[in-house]
Amino acid sequence: MSAAARHVIAVDDLREAWPALSPDERAEAFAALPAEDAEDFFVGLRPLGMAQILVRLPTARRRIWLRLLEPDDAADVLQELGAEERRELLALLDEPMRREVSALLAYEEDEAGGLMSPRYARVRPDMTVEEALRYLRRQALTRLETLYYAYVLDAGQRLLGVVSFRELFAAPGERRIDEIMVKELVSVPEDMDQEHVSRVVSRSDLVAVPVLDAEGRMKGIVTVDDIVDVVQEEATEDAQKFGGLAALETPYLQTGLGAMVRKRVAWLAVLFVGELLTASAMSRYEDELARAIVLAMFVPLIISSGGNSGSQAATLVIRAMALGEVKLKDWAVILRRELAAGLAMGLILSVLGMARVLLWEEMFGSYGRYAALIGVTVAASLVGVVLCGTLAGAMLPFLLRRLKLDPASASAPFVATLVDVSGVVIYFSVAELVLGGTLL
Amino acid sequence: MSAAARHVIAVDDLREAWPALSPDERAEAFAALPAEDAEDFFVGLRPLGMAQILVRLPTARRRIWLRLLEPDDAADVLQELGAEERRELLALLDEPMRREVSALLAYEEDEAGGLMSPRYARVRPDMTVEEALRYLRRQALTRLETLYYAYVLDAGQRLLGVVSFRELFAAPGERRIDEIMVKELVSVPEDMDQEHVSRVVSRSDLVAVPVLDAEGRMKGIVTVDDIVDVVQEEATEDAQKFGGLAALETPYLQTGLGAMVRKRVAWLAVLFVGELLTASAMSRYEDELARAIVLAMFVPLIISSGGNSGSQAATLVIRAMALGEVKLKDWAVILRRELAAGLAMGLILSVLGMARVLLWEEMFGSYGRYAALIGVTVAASLVGVVLCGTLAGAMLPFLLRRLKLDPASASAPFVATLVDVSGVVIYFSVAELVLGGTLL
Repeated sequence: MSAAARHVIAVDDLREAWPALSPDERAEAFAALPAEDAEDFFVGLRPLGMAQILVRLPTARRRIWLRLLEPDDAADVLQELGAEERRELLALLDEPMRREVSALLAYEEDEAGGLMSPRYARVRPDMTVEEALRYLRRQALTRLETLYYAYVLDAGQRLLGVVSFRELFAAPGERRIDEIMVKELVSVPEDMDQEHVSRVVSRSDLVAVPVLDAEGRMKGIVTVDDIVDVVQEEATEDAQKFGGLAALETPYLQTGLGAMVRKRVAWLAVLFVGELLTASAMSRYEDELARAIVLAMFVPLIISSGGNSGSQAATLVIRAMALGEVKLKDWAVILRRELAAGLAMGLILSVLGMARVLLWEEMFGSYGRYAALIGVTVAASLVGVVLCGTLAGAMLPFLLRRLKLDPASASAPFVATLVDVSGVVIYFSVAELVLGGTLL
Repeated sequence: MSAAARHVIAVDDLREAWPALSPDERAEAFAALPAEDAEDFFVGLRPLGMAQILVRLPTARRRIWLRLLEPDDAADVLQELGAEERRELLALLDEPMRREVSALLAYEEDEAGGLMSPRYARVRPDMTVEEALRYLRRQALTRLETLYYAYVLDAGQRLLGVVSFRELFAAPGERRIDEIMVKELVSVPEDMDQEHVSRVVSRSDLVAVPVLDAEGRMKGIVTVDDIVDVVQEEATEDAQKFGGLAALETPYLQTGLGAMVRKRVAWLAVLFVGELLTASAMSRYEDELARAIVLAMFVPLIISSGGNSGSQAATLVIRAMALGEVKLKDWAVILRRELAAGLAMGLILSVLGMARVLLWEEMFGSYGRYAALIGVTVAASLVGVVLCGTLAGAMLPFLLRRLKLDPASASAPFVATLVDVSGVVIYFSVAELVLGGTLL
């Protein structure tokens, strides 16, 4: 063990400091934990943290910690490692566990098979309750991860029904399992993606859901505590995409500065190039601007109002899609609603805009004899821009989903950039219409 | 029952259509479900949906459905109702259940007490394993909601330890409970807020966590399936705040158009008033603009680059705070990192900006003899604006949290508005510095 292990570290301090530590510091601090705290601490870590510690331990100690894990957790840890280290750690497992873990490693990390545990309680339909309880009791400590439901399988491993452990435990001992089992059950296919699985599980109100292969054979269970992590992960990914950057995949403080800048600047550069179009759009109106420099004053106000309303609408639709409240086929309903909402909000802002122009004219004489017409230009542009922003923000997620892309990529900055360009065009077109023959 | 109940509705169709239905339509469609599907369907509903159905049923049927619910779920349903309807429904419960539900109603909906179930398995420390199993078996069907852990309480209801049911089941029958129980356990106080509870539960990897009052007496358990809902709710709330609108609290399609517009336009109006400052800032530079109208072309480009980088930084920090990865005291670390990241990203965008100006000058002769200086102005402003946006986005959530406000209110639109105003000032100040004596 490392030299730093001489002094003992308090487990709460370590938990506090953990996110800010480098992998080497983590392994060292972990080694310095009092033995009675280390196990609890280790089991509470995320797979990445476990992997960072394991690869830095001597082989004999690796085996001890690795064997603490259930097969699905062990598979998650190995998934964090390179091929070489993965092989080394797999070799430390005993034969049955190695087989289970290898089977799990064949699944994608983010599908039902990659989330499931193969250690569930199985019983046969022709057992009595008493027999089933005796049978489960023998297996409880070694072969089971959980004891929430007993799954009833036929000889071909096909799932026939389920009994909650509570009901099994309370039923008269001589009843047959197939008399008390529930036959209609919620299950997920092994290749269902994790976001979908999390919706099924959270809607079912079950603590565990069985995972079946294409032939209806039971492969494992996904438990709801794994789903909590999935839901957090997916929400983080969506939030990061929506904020206009590629998903980080690692916690903020553990992402290197270089990687962080790369993930962010790529999006910023794309948006910048899009935003260059505003410069081109504005230069088309250079003559108008030269004649009425006052028009320039309201450009930021007008385009940002479009961006803000677009960002609102996109947030609502993306989140409602993520929760399954809104589906692709609902686009026409949303379009109608957002049309009405956008119009209403545009009108309200246009009153504010008009008031600002008239008030400043009254107080400071800012805009001269055409103040009223300038006010009308600003107000009418606001209605157009807010409506356009709202519709773009609401419909873009549908378009992206239709193209099989992630709706969360309709990020606030992306919508804002889109709306900025059209905002410039709307504003100057309205100006030409309203001010033509007077100011222009 | 209503006339519409004549034809029978397929449960999958109803599940599909549910979010789009009005409360009356929901109650009617529910009444038309085949009896064998209705129970499953009802139990899978969220509290609001259950409440909408219950208040529309005749009293006799209300009682049947209400009694299907566990006390914590019943309390959630009653919390959706007005005082009058709540009293009516409470009166339908039998005495012990009414007491349990009333006790739960005393808690806030969003604290540990409001999430917990009072029906957990309790055993005494001096029981043997065999006695405990017999005791639990008698209670399993009526008094327990779940059977994951047996909690060991002393005569004063204080929590001494816990045995997982799996271990209890597998232990030799003559062992005493206090010999096999785990004494170090995770628990939460009854008034802990649900976001915090969800972090504790998800970090603990437990299926249920005990809730204690200030004296250490056990009041109930929070199970992880309730936490999934909490995590979803909190993520939705954060996303909506970040997108620049007040949290809706009801699903998108169930929120009336009027309520929706109100929740959105309030924020839009606040941002609009903030954004009016850009018009004031720009009019300070009216003379400069009149002399060099070309400066106006780049205003949207420059301020939106600041907004985008601010939105990125705010997303990262807010999400890292929500996950507990970043704490208030980490502000200095984040400041240093974002300073470096902002500078790097600003420099990269400034190269793009410079390239655009020189390229257009080369190809179209857009900017005349001072093209290089205009390029320098744009490039230098971009560094300043991106740096300013990044720092504002990263630090604002800390400021809000310090003021005990929700960091998620540092929304993309809010940061963008803040940065727009400073962007205008930075841009024109740089222009005066670089172009003073030539163009200006």
